[in-house]
Formats: sequence, C-alpha cells, structure tokens
Amino acid sequence: MAEPPRYRFTPAFEAPAGSAIRELFPYLSRPGMISFAGGYPPPALFDQPGLATAAQRALGTAPVDCLQYSATEGLPMLREQLQALMARRGCQVALEELMVTTGSQQGLDLLIKVLLSPGDRVLVERPTYPATLQALRLAGCPLAGVATDAEGLDTGALAVQLAAEPRGRFRLLYCVPSFANPTGACLPLQRRLALLALAAEHDFLIVEDDPYGALRFAGEPLPSLLALQSQVPGAQGRVIHLSSLSKVVAPGLRVGWMVAPLPVRQRCTIAKQTVDLCTSPWAQRIAAEYLAAGALEQHLPTLVAGYRAKAERMLAGLAGLAGQLEVAPPQGGMFVWGRCRHGVLASDLFQRAVARNVLFVPGTAFFGDNPDPASLRLSFAAPGLAQIDEGLERLNLAFQSA
Amino acid sequence: MAEPPRYRFTPAFEAPAGSAIRELFPYLSRPGMISFAGGYPPPALFDQPGLATAAQRALGTAPVDCLQYSATEGLPMLREQLQALMARRGCQVALEELMVTTGSQQGLDLLIKVLLSPGDRVLVERPTYPATLQALRLAGCPLAGVATDAEGLDTGALAVQLAAEPRGRFRLLYCVPSFANPTGACLPLQRRLALLALAAEHDFLIVEDDPYGALRFAGEPLPSLLALQSQVPGAQGRVIHLSSLSKVVAPGLRVGWMVAPLPVRQRCTIAKQTVDLCTSPWAQRIAAEYLAAGALEQHLPTLVAGYRAKAERMLAGLAGLAGQLEVAPPQGGMFVWGRCRHGVLASDLFQRAVARNVLFVPGTAFFGDNPDPASLRLSFAAPGLAQIDEGLERLNLAFQSA
Repeated sequence: MAEPPRYRFTPAFEAPAGSAIRELFPYLSRPGMISFAGGYPPPALFDQPGLATAAQRALGTAPVDCLQYSATEGLPMLREQLQALMARRGCQVALEELMVTTGSQQGLDLLIKVLLSPGDRVLVERPTYPATLQALRLAGCPLAGVATDAEGLDTGALAVQLAAEPRGRFRLLYCVPSFANPTGACLPLQRRLALLALAAEHDFLIVEDDPYGALRFAGEPLPSLLALQSQVPGAQGRVIHLSSLSKVVAPGLRVGWMVAPLPVRQRCTIAKQTVDLCTSPWAQRIAAEYLAAGALEQHLPTLVAGYRAKAERMLAGLAGLAGQLEVAPPQGGMFVWGRCRHGVLASDLFQRAVARNVLFVPGTAFFGDNPDPASLRLSFAAPGLAQIDEGLERLNLAFQSA
Repeated sequence: MAEPPRYRFTPAFEAPAGSAIRELFPYLSRPGMISFAGGYPPPALFDQPGLATAAQRALGTAPVDCLQYSATEGLPMLREQLQALMARRGCQVALEELMVTTGSQQGLDLLIKVLLSPGDRVLVERPTYPATLQALRLAGCPLAGVATDAEGLDTGALAVQLAAEPRGRFRLLYCVPSFANPTGACLPLQRRLALLALAAEHDFLIVEDDPYGALRFAGEPLPSLLALQSQVPGAQGRVIHLSSLSKVVAPGLRVGWMVAPLPVRQRCTIAKQTVDLCTSPWAQRIAAEYLAAGALEQHLPTLVAGYRAKAERMLAGLAGLAGQLEVAPPQGGMFVWGRCRHGVLASDLFQRAVARNVLFVPGTAFFGDNPDPASLRLSFAAPGLAQIDEGLERLNLAFQSA
C-alpha cells in the first residue's frame, strides 16, 4: 500500500495534548476502582421519572419542534424557560440577550471565535477548569494566572497585578465564582463587587461560568456577577454569563446557555450558524418541558441534599487525614481541593492510590503554568457514601506507604 | 445609565454577515406563503413512530447512556451502528476512524480548527453550501472557486486551474459530490476518479460532505469518494467524509459523523473536547436504537419515494416555465438549480415572487465571489404536491410581471 499523505496541521494541533482528566479513563474501568476523579453527576441523582415525563410530552405534543431544525439561538419555549430560571436566580435578563448553547462549553468556544484573536491576553484563576485552559491555549491566547485562596479569586492580588499593566491589557477574565472547579471555592460578595470594579477600571470583560451555583448545600446564597453588574459603576455590559443544565438536570442533554450583551450575543449566533446550526432541538424541547413542569424546582432539594450528604461524609473522612492533607471545605458544588503536607507530591500519591484502587486528579491539570505539585482534586459527586468511606481509607493507606 | 463598554471583536466578527438564507425567515411566517427556499425535510416524511419507539427504548433500557456524558468520539453503540451504515454504503471503515459530530456542520468546524490556518487556500465548488463559505471566510481562508456544470464539479477545469499553481498550493477541497446543495448535481464516476487523482497529484485533502447521498430517486448508485480512494494511486488517506442523519432521520437529533484518517480523527476529538465535550448522548442513544432496529432501512424507501414524487412534480411544473428558466433535473437530494433566461435577475424575480407569496433562494448566497445573478435555488423538499403546483403557478406570474 502507498504511503499516506503527510498531513499539515495548524500549529496548535501539530502535537496537541489531550485532556489530562481523560487520560484517567482507562483506570476507571478497573474492577473495584473507587473514583474521586470525575465531576460526573451520579446516576442515582438523575430525576429519571421527571425526565421520562418531559421526554414523553416533548415528542407527544411537539414532534416537529423535536425533529426539525430550530432557530440558531434556541427554541423559543426553552429560551423563555431559561429566562424564567435566570429570574429565579436573581437576574432579569432580556430574551434577546439569552441564547441556547450545546453545553456551556460551547459558550466559551463561541466567545473565543468572536472576541479573542491569537495574542489577546486572558486572565484565569490559578487553578481553573482544564478545558478552558485548553481552549484558550489552542486559540493562541497568552494566559495570565490570578492567585486564589480558600475564598476564590484574590481580588487584592488581581488589583496589584493589573496596576502594573496598561489599561486594556487583558481582553477578558474567565472565572467560576460559585463552587469553582477545581477548588470548590465561592467568591464572597465584597470580592464580587471588587472584581466588577476592576473590570470597569481596567477595561476587560468577565466570563462568569456558573454550572454549579444552584448546588449550594451550606451558607447563604450570593448574587451572581451578572446580577451585581448594575450596582458597580462602569461594570454594566461587562459580564457574559454561561450556565448549563448538565449539573442540575443531566449532562446528556448538552443544553447550556449564554447571557450576553446584545452585540456579543448576536455575533455568537452568527458563529453558531457555522458551528452546529442549532443545539439538538429534541434535547431542547425535553429540557423546556422539564423546566415548564417545575420539575427542576421540585428535584433541586433532593439533588442538593444528596451532594450535602456526600460532601459531609467526605469532609468527615478527610478530617482523619488532616495530618497528610490540607483541605478547604466547600459550601456547594462537587469538589474538594487539597494540598499534600510534608512535601508529598500529588503525582507520587496518585501512583500509590491507583495501586490501591482509588482515583483522584493530581492538581497539575488545573494550572496554566507553574503547577502546585502538592495539590489535588477530590470529587464527592459520583461515589456513594460507603464508597467515600472506603476510598478515603485507601487514600490513607496510599499516604502511609510514602 | 452609564455607557456600555466598547466591545473589541475579532476582525472576522466586527461586522459579520449572517446567513442570507436565514434572512428569508421573516417571509416564511407570512400567511399563505409557499416556500421553495429552505432545505428542511418535511414533517410528513419524519418516521415519528419509529423514532418514538427508539426514544422509548433508549431511555427505558439505557438511561445512564442517555443522561450522562459520553466519550467525546461518541457512544460506542452509535459508532458501531454508523460503521455498519457506512458498510451498507460501500465503505469498510475502521471504528477508530469514525467519530460522532453535532451535525455534519460540526465536522467542518473541527476540521477548520485542526487543518486550516488563516491564509490557507481552499477549493470550493461554484456554487456551494453557504454555511461552508461562511465558516471558511470566518477562518480567514482565501477561497478559490471551481467551475461546475450539470454533472457537478468540472474536473477538467480544475486540472487546468491546478496546473497553473505550485503543488501543495491548496490545503483542501470541499465538495458535495452527491446531489449537491445548491445544484442537485451528482458527480459521475469518471469525475470522482479524476478528482481523487488530482488530489494525489497536487497534494490536497478532499472533504466529501455527503448528507444527501442516500436520497437517490433516479439513476444508478455511485460509490462515494471515500469508497473510491483506494482505487486511485496516491489518493488513499486524502478523503475526509462527513455525513449526517439530519436529512434521512431528523435534523432535531443533530447527529452527524466524520470518517477521517486516524491522525486527523484523533486531533478532531481533542478539538471537540473544547467545543462541546460530546454530542448529546441522549440524541446519540436514540439514533443508535433507531439504526439498530433497522428502522432507517425500513423507512428509506418511503423517504425516497416521497422526494421522488415531489421532484417529479416540480420538474413537470418547471417544464411549463422552460421559456423563462433553465433547470438541471436532479437524480436525488432536495434541490433544483435554475438560471433565469432573457437577462432576468434572480433578485428582481425574488421581489416579485415574494409579492405573490412564493419563496426561493436567489443564487448569490451560494457563491464565494462573482455570483451568477441569474441563478436561483428551488427546493421541493418541504411543500406538498399541491403546494408545488400552486407555487410554480405563482412563480410563473412573477416571471410574467417582469
């Protein structure tokens, strides 16, 4: 057979690194493995009856909506339901500012197409969501990390960092202010206001990624950056809000949404015309029926109670590991961020943990550069309570065998 | 209220033109309008019972497959079903060369990310699918048009065009060889082989977009470029094949797929991780159940007969307009391409047609540059038979009123 042609790839794709978390997949199928790695919702917390009803109603009452193309910005019924959901979350948004996306992941992809040229500088939390790092890297955007602590993005450090740069130096800042992936941190109100003021002062946009905000199991609710922008002079129009049904309904829908100022939203719609034309209308209609029936509001307490129980169980177990691992207890979401004490490297611990059939994600994956080698992410979302106990015992043994 | 910030968009999105076809949408809702404009499958030809059964089985037997994230390259069950479908279409493809995409539109978006840098030259048919023109334009790729005639891409003209350029001048060629949008043309076997030979000789890749190939209602089936590549020295590994269930099952699934040489497919998977993580697993599982039940094979004759009847009715009606409009009868797909005689401009005719409540798409939208102002596209897919008669009578009146 003849030699295959020499493929010429774009520079970013000559030798691209895949997702570090994805590389853990082969371990997941090992018999008896307990995983604190993925941020997958547990099937036991899916509202299967509610979704089955919604699916039946969708195809039964609106087959053409399900089966035909929809408008690129989304099915009108779903956009209205998402507008109502945003109102329940304290944000009055105009319908024309809201568009449906294929997961919130697509929201970022569209924003990159519309807003970021190669070389445009972007601010990200240190650590942050790896797929965002990857998307920005592939887009050729230099990343500047912003320090975080147990309360999330350190706005004091950011102010110092920005003061050293000319105004307009950074095009945007990406953050997950509520129960961040990977840290679980929730940004306090004063820092939210400070961040908005910095955006106005230094002329950057904020992409607020909010897949986890509704999963609060402790503490008091906080308004989103989107809800707060009108309170800060000069901040109005600077927040682009991404959210998703993946963590509160089901990832399998791939239904997310974006709320953005009209000039941004309109261009994202044009970008989406060349990307996937529209998000699956069938999935959209199912999601719309589910929301219209009030099923999310009904199911949310069960979901939150489920995550609360798992988080409490994990934190109780981690208390026994306090000599080895320093953790910051989250008030919501799916993740606990930890740092190994005594100079233990998370990558070494990982090898010993895998040998004992327990998985976590070494923290390196979450840093744009200069990773903290002691850090790691544990998710309590997927395992059951007994598995959490057992998995932490195995982790303890992994620490002991150092 | 304070002034909104000045948004800085990427050059391609400073003042982007939306889809010309989308701009026809407002006319569609006019009472009594008959549309030959969109290439939407008619709801009457959706296999609603078959899809309802597949949907019930999907959620009933595999709820976690439906609701959870899937692997980025697609649900294993769907990939296997699509591999079997490709085999029925005469292509033995390795599973690892096949990935699921969110419509075939996403296939092109991923390929652009992976293969095309701004400035990379791309060959496209004149005329061709507007969303492809738009995607390539937004990616900063200079487009070179290749002449077509009633049999599709003119490989003789392409050979002359390429002879004038250094080898490797063009990165890839995009084409719809079977029942093209907008021309309806189907590339004959000899031209398919000639095109593959040119790809080998001049070192370019071919993106074969094949959403309509299964909708043949006249003439003999032809092998795809993918199936033929091994027969042409040096062509193996040069064809990337995109297809979709949108035209044969339902657009609402947004399930397409790509068959590509492994180095390309792997990089497209990495690109998809940052784009939408995975195509809706729920839609994927429904599609997989539908295919596994043999429902597509059962439904296809009904679908083809439906389009045949519509095409014949439209061609019969157009025979009465032969003095005004020159058309090329298609052997499959959804479209008839026409050229107005006597110097009539399609844009003028469009205004008079809209006034008589009948829509078509002026041909300008389908050209990268130097549009043929006499050309227009008629789709017989959506209207019923009586509507086709009535719509063509109105079109005749529009011609008369010139």
